[in-house]
Amino acid sequence: MDVELISIGDEIITGHTIDTNTPYIARRLAEIGLNVAYRTAVGDDLLRMEEIIHQALKRADVIIATGGLGPTDDDITKKAIVKVFKRNLVFHEDVLEDLKKRFAARGIEMPSINQNQALLPQGAVYLPNRIGSAVGIVIAEEGKIFASLPGVPREMEIITDEELIPYLQAHLVMPGHIKIHKLKTTGIFESALAEKIAPFIKLPEHVRLAYLPSFSGVDLRIIAPGGTKEAAEKSAGNAIKQLRELAGKYIYGENEDTLEGVVGKLLTERNQTVATAESCTAGLLAGKITNIPGSSNYFCQGVVTYSNQSKIDLLGVPKDIIEKHGAVSAETAEAMAAGIKEKANADYGVAVTGIAGPDGGTDEKPVGTVFIAVASSNGVVSAKHSFSKDRKSNRGRSVYAALEMLRRAILEIK
Amino acid sequence: MDVELISIGDEIITGHTIDTNTPYIARRLAEIGLNVAYRTAVGDDLLRMEEIIHQALKRADVIIATGGLGPTDDDITKKAIVKVFKRNLVFHEDVLEDLKKRFAARGIEMPSINQNQALLPQGAVYLPNRIGSAVGIVIAEEGKIFASLPGVPREMEIITDEELIPYLQAHLVMPGHIKIHKLKTTGIFESALAEKIAPFIKLPEHVRLAYLPSFSGVDLRIIAPGGTKEAAEKSAGNAIKQLRELAGKYIYGENEDTLEGVVGKLLTERNQTVATAESCTAGLLAGKITNIPGSSNYFCQGVVTYSNQSKIDLLGVPKDIIEKHGAVSAETAEAMAAGIKEKANADYGVAVTGIAGPDGGTDEKPVGTVFIAVASSNGVVSAKHSFSKDRKSNRGRSVYAALEMLRRAILEIK
Repeated sequence: MDVELISIGDEIITGHTIDTNTPYIARRLAEIGLNVAYRTAVGDDLLRMEEIIHQALKRADVIIATGGLGPTDDDITKKAIVKVFKRNLVFHEDVLEDLKKRFAARGIEMPSINQNQALLPQGAVYLPNRIGSAVGIVIAEEGKIFASLPGVPREMEIITDEELIPYLQAHLVMPGHIKIHKLKTTGIFESALAEKIAPFIKLPEHVRLAYLPSFSGVDLRIIAPGGTKEAAEKSAGNAIKQLRELAGKYIYGENEDTLEGVVGKLLTERNQTVATAESCTAGLLAGKITNIPGSSNYFCQGVVTYSNQSKIDLLGVPKDIIEKHGAVSAETAEAMAAGIKEKANADYGVAVTGIAGPDGGTDEKPVGTVFIAVASSNGVVSAKHSFSKDRKSNRGRSVYAALEMLRRAILEIK
Repeated sequence: MDVELISIGDEIITGHTIDTNTPYIARRLAEIGLNVAYRTAVGDDLLRMEEIIHQALKRADVIIATGGLGPTDDDITKKAIVKVFKRNLVFHEDVLEDLKKRFAARGIEMPSINQNQALLPQGAVYLPNRIGSAVGIVIAEEGKIFASLPGVPREMEIITDEELIPYLQAHLVMPGHIKIHKLKTTGIFESALAEKIAPFIKLPEHVRLAYLPSFSGVDLRIIAPGGTKEAAEKSAGNAIKQLRELAGKYIYGENEDTLEGVVGKLLTERNQTVATAESCTAGLLAGKITNIPGSSNYFCQGVVTYSNQSKIDLLGVPKDIIEKHGAVSAETAEAMAAGIKEKANADYGVAVTGIAGPDGGTDEKPVGTVFIAVASSNGVVSAKHSFSKDRKSNRGRSVYAALEMLRRAILEIK
């Protein structure tokens, strides 16, 4: 079964917006065993859009388009659908009511231009959009499924996860069974992880293992096909068992687990709390921890102490520690962690101080030098990291390194 | 003159790598007046790759492919070229010599597998790669130009800038010039912005205006073609002037400007400082402000006060304000903003308090209710926002709303 993904919009075709939508959909489809064969992008050009959709209908079974569903004149996806599928637009009272409610809830009168968004191609199924005004559209015709989703990434993600994937699972006969499972690691490089795994693991030829590195760590993805659901799950289970034996220390979770979610779960189970003191990450660690709904139960407070004075005032870091060792040092990180633990009366204090760049580096402490410390009832531990020259990457990696250090402190892993 | 860009590789088609290569090439081509009409991606699949190249030769004049030029077995772009253009591979002694020198300079003997990379299609022009082993390839045939570049982003960029663009400029008769300009707005919906602009703006037919919405606001993009560079710039200038008259209040910047960058520039120019107090955004606002290198000059400190007690302890919010109006209220937001301004001795204090969701909403204050306040020497202002039901979106929108409120406070815009 072949899938084609189509990205629509001048901003995509001109390169002014990087398309992250179709990669997202491709990954989600892979999880239900659907493989993307083609990806195409086209600008806000009605004729070309029609041509692209016609072509996709010839060579693919499932076609998913993103973008061009907004209320303004440059949003012409529905016009293309009307032409290709030879259907009229019909007015959906329920969609309009939803739209009006959405605007009313925000205390705004709905601009009349948004009425367009309640016009949908005849016979189409619509996929509700609970955070935006453009609903998704699905047309099933001659054994093919064509879906059109809004291009705003968060809206596309929610509709894909909550509406499109269940629709496809309900309407497609899947080609065999595939079990996809991810084990999520952090705190180790891809190549070092591969050295621990590759020489030792024994997998049947049809089971595929991939190393997927990112800021947050390296995911190990297993794809295990099988004639039956049980056979696929058995193959995957065998691979998972071996991976846990070979690299268990680095595995913090599975599939959709996030490091901040795992840490939150551990704190909740133990009825413990955490507080943060950040310099170079400047709030990103607190922001990441509180991504999790209900984090207010275990996250008590955080401070962003950029200046030396604020480290002294807010955290009680002794002035002579900063003078002797510098603001970016193990000693300062440890004093920050102990300081926030005490001030916030928390079970754990986590501190980050470093040189994110591009400026501020020295020969002794180049850009990318970051110290992270965790204070707990077991005392204070700290670690030095040497990341890259890139500010964004240094800040992102520091957040995950701090979360991992906290996870290990909670679990008392050395 | 139509251009088609093709991205090649399983990692692209499966969504595990985000394609930033073709957007880069599209932007570079736009600068010399060439428009991309189609973008296509295909996996490491020889038959599909041939099909895609055949199709591109039918509908485009210039075709540029990236990826699949490496030395390993899964790099099959040259195989596809050989089939489509019916040419043999011929050995290029000079390319091999360059390769050997490159490896020798690093003190490594060249692996024999790299010899493949000196085999190029007969009659092809090659584009030297000064940082990697895969050279670019150009084939000109029947009035069409087909180019193939390596997929490693930095190599692709250098070859595009130094080799491909000059080649195209020398070999193509260019169809005029194009001026692309973006005006960036925030604090207004796409549809409301369109109602202020669409009925009143007067644009010649060839000038295109697009509304590009995201969390941070709506970008207005103008594409103005012209017979000469001056004519294109004049058309764009005229459109920009009208947009500034119609929606100037909402425009915070142009082209690559970011809201946090614009705010940082304003603070730097005025030699002023800011401090933050966050509840529902919990560090994301501080994290966003400090994305900007050098932000330590104007960002002094931030606190994340999730609990009521921390709002009292760290910000001096009076207990009876929280008891009377609630932690999520204009009064608490204002007290937080005034508190952090004073504690940090900053020129501006910015505070965010709200219900990000999914839990914690009430009839009176549903999920998505957020209060933002800014304290300055002009006193304290606050605003209520009603965002969505989605935690991530609420937190993201709150950050941009707070930055925009700060921008307006600095500029004393009502």
